[in-house]
Amino acid sequence: MTKKVPENQTFSSVEKKAFYKAIYGRRDIRREFLSKAIPLRTLKKILKAAHHAGSVGFMQPWNFIVVRSPLIRRKVKEIFLTENERASRNYSGKKQSKYRALKLEGIMESPVNICVTCDPRRGGPHVLGRNTIKQTDIFSTCCAIQNLWLAARVENIGVGWVSILDNRLLKKALNIPKHIQPVAYLCLGYVANFSKKPMLQTVGWRKRTPLESLIFNDGWEKR
Amino acid sequence: MTKKVPENQTFSSVEKKAFYKAIYGRRDIRREFLSKAIPLRTLKKILKAAHHAGSVGFMQPWNFIVVRSPLIRRKVKEIFLTENERASRNYSGKKQSKYRALKLEGIMESPVNICVTCDPRRGGPHVLGRNTIKQTDIFSTCCAIQNLWLAARVENIGVGWVSILDNRLLKKALNIPKHIQPVAYLCLGYVANFSKKPMLQTVGWRKRTPLESLIFNDGWEKR
Repeated sequence: MTKKVPENQTFSSVEKKAFYKAIYGRRDIRREFLSKAIPLRTLKKILKAAHHAGSVGFMQPWNFIVVRSPLIRRKVKEIFLTENERASRNYSGKKQSKYRALKLEGIMESPVNICVTCDPRRGGPHVLGRNTIKQTDIFSTCCAIQNLWLAARVENIGVGWVSILDNRLLKKALNIPKHIQPVAYLCLGYVANFSKKPMLQTVGWRKRTPLESLIFNDGWEKR
Repeated sequence: MTKKVPENQTFSSVEKKAFYKAIYGRRDIRREFLSKAIPLRTLKKILKAAHHAGSVGFMQPWNFIVVRSPLIRRKVKEIFLTENERASRNYSGKKQSKYRALKLEGIMESPVNICVTCDPRRGGPHVLGRNTIKQTDIFSTCCAIQNLWLAARVENIGVGWVSILDNRLLKKALNIPKHIQPVAYLCLGYVANFSKKPMLQTVGWRKRTPLESLIFNDGWEKR
């Protein structure tokens, strides 16, 4: 007889549906943040979900810097503005106008920002599973970030990842030690609406790639 | 009046519970894989969930190489064995015996392996949001991997991430072009049991860090 997973560990069709609702309903939020505060209890739930991601050698290399201070958020916003101006110069003509019209962050409008960092020294010099591929600490941190993102969605909280930042200046603003790497700077807040499609798809910036074209069998480009 | 998220977009307490069941029930699986095949339909569902992760500039830099060939899996297993022998030499005495006793992969026992890769050139030279922090393509790929991991859990499929590999040799085995980076090598299969705690916690390799110690406010180490 085949062994079966205990029933309380399996997912009913209703449970599966709820899970996929989070997967497909998650968005990168840059506008429509409401000023409503996030209760501490809810924030902890979201961070706990992040903390329960898998990590190489159970390293748990992440930290979460919760930023509420308007003064510090203003500093981060300034870093964004400088970098975004630089980024816009990569485009010209219509594409540049389109780029400049995009709203790419909600640093000041969202009530809470979170900087997720990675400590490459955590767990000592020999972390199990991190012998050959050193970047695995960063990979683990990103898995935690995705857990955070999905858990926030389930709590009706939008998350926007701001990647147009100079990390050297960000580290200065948050007093982050030299050896620690900031991985994500996230804006969190309740929103009035989660759009059906990613914003960049809706505005015609870029299309979704057909999944089939991304799957290979037993080797690169083998179908 | 405060704007409210439309009801079909919010999560009921039952739906939230289902979501967190996946978050807390996900494990890194190395043993207990069953030989039972994964239906193509289920595999597609899992990959579709991965493909719906957010990505910098909607770059979708990932590919999924599904590896079923026992010949290729044997090659990957050999790469693992060499690297794992090297890794074990980082430890000595009791710790080394403990390390050697651990089962760290299920490459041959699981019916399906998936190599998730990242293409840094996808989307052209100027990907929106990837101006300053170039690694964001890898970050996006890891978010997709976490979606895959969670979706597999919901489908009662275990996933084990094998990170003890030499990527140069892995690329050779899978015919991956020079500019493409393998990010994860995953083993997928049905399992008889998802343990309550991470294996490395159960065997006393490493403890879970208290979440509170990982959270700072408005700056590094500020409580």
